[in-house]
Amino acid sequence: MRPEEFPHVVASHMVKSIDLNHHQTLFAGRMSEWMVETAFMTARNALACHPGNLVCKRVHKLDFRKPVPAGETFVLEGRVAHVGRTSISVYIEGYILVPQSAPVVTADGFVSFVHVTEGTDNIRPLPHGVNAEAPQDPKAIELWQYIEQERGGERPQQPAAPSVAR
Amino acid sequence: MRPEEFPHVVASHMVKSIDLNHHQTLFAGRMSEWMVETAFMTARNALACHPGNLVCKRVHKLDFRKPVPAGETFVLEGRVAHVGRTSISVYIEGYILVPQSAPVVTADGFVSFVHVTEGTDNIRPLPHGVNAEAPQDPKAIELWQYIEQERGGERPQQPAAPSVAR
Amino acid sequence: MRPEEFPHVVASHMVKSIDLNHHQTLFAGRMSEWMVETAFMTARNALACHPGNLVCKRVHKLDFRKPVPAGETFVLEGRVAHVGRTSISVYIEGYILVPQSAPVVTADGFVSFVHVTEGTDNIRPLPHGVNAEAPQDPKAIELWQYIEQERGGERPQQPAAPSVAR
Amino acid sequence: MRPEEFPHVVASHMVKSIDLNHHQTLFAGRMSEWMVETAFMTARNALACHPGNLVCKRVHKLDFRKPVPAGETFVLEGRVAHVGRTSISVYIEGYILVPQSAPVVTADGFVSFVHVTEGTDNIRPLPHGVNAEAPQDPKAIELWQYIEQERGGERPQQPAAPSVAR
Amino acid sequence: MRPEEFPHVVASHMVKSIDLNHHQTLFAGRMSEWMVETAFMTARNALACHPGNLVCKRVHKLDFRKPVPAGETFVLEGRVAHVGRTSISVYIEGYILVPQSAPVVTADGFVSFVHVTEGTDNIRPLPHGVNAEAPQDPKAIELWQYIEQERGGERPQQPAAPSVAR
Amino acid sequence: MRPEEFPHVVASHMVKSIDLNHHQTLFAGRMSEWMVETAFMTARNALACHPGNLVCKRVHKLDFRKPVPAGETFVLEGRVAHVGRTSISVYIEGYILVPQSAPVVTADGFVSFVHVTEGTDNIRPLPHGVNAEAPQDPKAIELWQYIEQERGGERPQQPAAPSVAR
Repeated sequence: MRPEEFPHVVASHMVKSIDLNHHQTLFAGRMSEWMVETAFMTARNALACHPGNLVCKRVHKLDFRKPVPAGETFVLEGRVAHVGRTSISVYIEGYILVPQSAPVVTADGFVSFVHVTEGTDNIRPLPHGVNAEAPQDPKAIELWQYIEQERGGERPQQPAAPSVAR
Repeated sequence: MRPEEFPHVVASHMVKSIDLNHHQTLFAGRMSEWMVETAFMTARNALACHPGNLVCKRVHKLDFRKPVPAGETFVLEGRVAHVGRTSISVYIEGYILVPQSAPVVTADGFVSFVHVTEGTDNIRPLPHGVNAEAPQDPKAIELWQYIEQERGGERPQQPAAPSVAR
Repeated sequence: MRPEEFPHVVASHMVKSIDLNHHQTLFAGRMSEWMVETAFMTARNALACHPGNLVCKRVHKLDFRKPVPAGETFVLEGRVAHVGRTSISVYIEGYILVPQSAPVVTADGFVSFVHVTEGTDNIRPLPHGVNAEAPQDPKAIELWQYIEQERGGERPQQPAAPSVAR
Repeated sequence: MRPEEFPHVVASHMVKSIDLNHHQTLFAGRMSEWMVETAFMTARNALACHPGNLVCKRVHKLDFRKPVPAGETFVLEGRVAHVGRTSISVYIEGYILVPQSAPVVTADGFVSFVHVTEGTDNIRPLPHGVNAEAPQDPKAIELWQYIEQERGGERPQQPAAPSVAR
Repeated sequence: MRPEEFPHVVASHMVKSIDLNHHQTLFAGRMSEWMVETAFMTARNALACHPGNLVCKRVHKLDFRKPVPAGETFVLEGRVAHVGRTSISVYIEGYILVPQSAPVVTADGFVSFVHVTEGTDNIRPLPHGVNAEAPQDPKAIELWQYIEQERGGERPQQPAAPSVAR
Repeated sequence: MRPEEFPHVVASHMVKSIDLNHHQTLFAGRMSEWMVETAFMTARNALACHPGNLVCKRVHKLDFRKPVPAGETFVLEGRVAHVGRTSISVYIEGYILVPQSAPVVTADGFVSFVHVTEGTDNIRPLPHGVNAEAPQDPKAIELWQYIEQERGGERPQQPAAPSVAR
């Protein structure tokens, strides 16, 4: 299965008083929380694993481009961006639902997870057994490469050549 | 447009500690809150109206068929059930997201709204200007008739004959 | 004991920012949550059972008649509406507390529960052992009949004749 | 009107996951919040004033005598303890609702408010115009004296002789 | 160690919509919750104990001197006020963070805890084994004496002479 | 002023039921929310600006290294990482408070803000007027360069040479 073929997970939220900052728009902290939650559901659905086997490792490059006013319907849509041997990364887009209009993305970002042994002690990474083929859709290629590049940058000691289904 | 042609609104939630009852399953009060919220977003999207013009009038026949355990992804999906002159009713289904399986509905129900004048004083119903044709899909017909029947039962003084697009 | 003789449960809430919709009045989703919570406390108190033996089955006919502004004291009062062999239904009224005035009900509705075996697996209905005599108060009769009628409409295959204390 | 004649305000809460500490019992911080909220509603109802005219000045002597387990119904009951010229103090009792038993108080305390000019700038105390006669019920006398004594201790420069309806 | 030598615990909060009363300033109930939470962290850190060994006994004399507007940074700072044999009391100050200015305390108060046996049944006080020397800093002496005096007032049967490290 | 000379902002939180994931450890979404909130308070304090002039632009590289169990005191500490002409970036470290031990950082990350015109329409970046000298502390240099590099990578068309106080 190619990364773009995993199902998306959609989470719509009505922006209520509880979610606002002092600008009366959606608080970035709340939006971050929603992005992590949507990413978790997307990752878990793709791996078909128990929630106890998935831990969040990194939130990266959440960009907030436009304010989201109170009363709006804010939709978060998660898709698989990258699949490693024990890891999975999700790309999240957020947009305001405007009737009869194409969505304009107002926020996006990545959240990465590691598949681990269950329990609370001595948690170790555990291969999740899901392989992804090379992405073919241009957007999917871009997302895949962003994660590859960031992982590479962090661990330059690795002998490179990350294969698609490592 | 027929009622079954209006777009659905989907809201996925990870069931967290904050959402649980003393059984460690999803609290019915929280589920009711989510159903109202999803219904609101569905109604507003169908009417393409300002949130300030829509008020909730009734929550009816929310049925909770099975418990939803902590950690699960609970998906609510709202669709238009009935369109009146100033009213709109939404049917909500809730199910646990199980990877690679058809969804099994564990909760469903109806929420009805009235389109009103804006502001806070002297709020009156206001025609929303959206007409629906007669439903043709069997499920859509069933939902439409449920609302018709319930409205009829409540206002027996009405001279009957509610047309589809009144 | 007649249904009108079971104790009422009263839950007063100050309407705060966290509870508001975009109209700056009490959000219907929050009100639904409060109604379910008050109903649960009323049912459990009437049955004198462990909270682990009570599950919510249905929220029906919550009607929101008037907006509730921020800052007001909103009072929910639950009373037993119907007692079955394994079920119990509660009627909830909500009103704004106005000093030195009779309460004007702005919202009401029903919530039904089933008494079940404890635990998380293989939950089955379990007779709760509480019998109710026939209601005599006119309002209590009306509430009882509403639930009888709704249960009847749902299970027309039943040989009818629901006795008061089945 | 004597202080014991003002109406009580009752707020019942189901103790849910969201309300627990790491002992899995009701968190003292949440209980404090509920006591303040119930006191506010009690004070406002007694003065029949606008919520904008009432500010909280002091929380005193909240005592937590016993833990409150998850799933229980926790009832807070507020009554007027003392009425000053611009102030009002409320006494709150909290107890677990046990069917067919007299309530055992597990927490109690006082919250004092000042009646003030409305608005956000230059807020000043404003006589609320409600006078209380001397309490006659022994419990009411005890509550009244507690507040008198505490106010006296704080402002020893005052020429004493606090009359009942100052 | 003298009481003024135990480390302070600092908790800063951005005042958000969720925290407001109908004046659009920080709700006293929320502030009380934050004060209890900060006190708990301060007490636990001073005793170096497991959170399961610490229960809140009393919230005393929380004074709210000035409103805290939305959007402000509200800082709570807890310090040890008194150390008994099984008890510990914390003094909390709250202030609005104003850049490049000395903090002006807008709220303060005391919260007392008891060190207890672990578990949920038959909880009994348990000496925590932490002794405090006599305070020397004037503010620390004042805080210590406030608690001594309040404890004394409550238990007049005690033969006085509370030593610093009882 | 050098970036390492701006005051830190500290926010301690007791990890409660409401903050947990299904592992019974601190939910990554909640931690993200707290990091954004602490960063906001740090940025606003450094710029001494009105909260209405500061919007969150990016959450980057939040790393969660270890789980945080329920009941622990989790401390977030924000410091200025980078100061641009209209931007400011904050570095946040999170650690579990262990009595008498040096803190072990279990999570860290960056949050960037832009200083903007006030109001809700046509919001534009506005120079905040705060200049930072070159950092000298090694950690401060590392943080500064991380942000420079990330900004550079994003806008390669820029003629480089980012001066310290642009």
